[in-house]
Amino acid sequence: MQKKFEVNDYGEFSKTISESDVYLFAGICGDFNPVHVNQKEAEKSRFKNRVVHGALISAFISTVLGTVMPGPGTIYLEQNIKFIKPVFIGQTITAKAIIRDIISNKACMETTVINQDGIVVAEGTAKVLLP
Amino acid sequence: MQKKFEVNDYGEFSKTISESDVYLFAGICGDFNPVHVNQKEAEKSRFKNRVVHGALISAFISTVLGTVMPGPGTIYLEQNIKFIKPVFIGQTITAKAIIRDIISNKACMETTVINQDGIVVAEGTAKVLLP
Repeated sequence: MQKKFEVNDYGEFSKTISESDVYLFAGICGDFNPVHVNQKEAEKSRFKNRVVHGALISAFISTVLGTVMPGPGTIYLEQNIKFIKPVFIGQTITAKAIIRDIISNKACMETTVINQDGIVVAEGTAKVLLP
Repeated sequence: MQKKFEVNDYGEFSKTISESDVYLFAGICGDFNPVHVNQKEAEKSRFKNRVVHGALISAFISTVLGTVMPGPGTIYLEQNIKFIKPVFIGQTITAKAIIRDIISNKACMETTVINQDGIVVAEGTAKVLLP
């Protein structure tokens, strides 16, 4: 039986981001921007510390969509994201997704990422094909 | 001396995506959607094969922005991306970024990812703070 989805269906995913997450991520995608992997350079930046890649923060949204809500079988069509606050190594983030609209087999999702203090670090929308 | 940026400044980044890229990426972000990491389930999907995470394709755009154009020191503000075609393990992708507009110290970038056959697999826009 096919799962039924409804507006306001919600899911989330949390993770404490380790140094190894950031370094492996840099190795996979090739983004060795010093602001992510060079402590000395990062200290000279506006953030005064190494910052987690925005693209990694954005990946946690894909994790919610692909594994929690709507879940396995979801196909990612479109993502819009604004990076609002920096995330640092050791912080615990929670990516949240809620269905805002369903048209035929497509859903528009509102997506938000907060840190351990409940501060929004990124927000946006996503479009997916429902499983 | 500060680097001067101009409209139409261009950069790109290419990589052949390995199975280990996809598996490490899944381990980092937690997206174990079977369509990415389960060959048998993926064969039953519309794609008939394991598909690279869209969020990984999108990360290569961050790589161009953060390491090539505009380059180190760039701060990612916003990303909009549409996933147009699936990318499979072993394919070689090229992420491209071109400056379309500069307002004060912010740039609007047009971003495109193509595969080894020149077919667009993802496209969108990004806003960055220039270094």
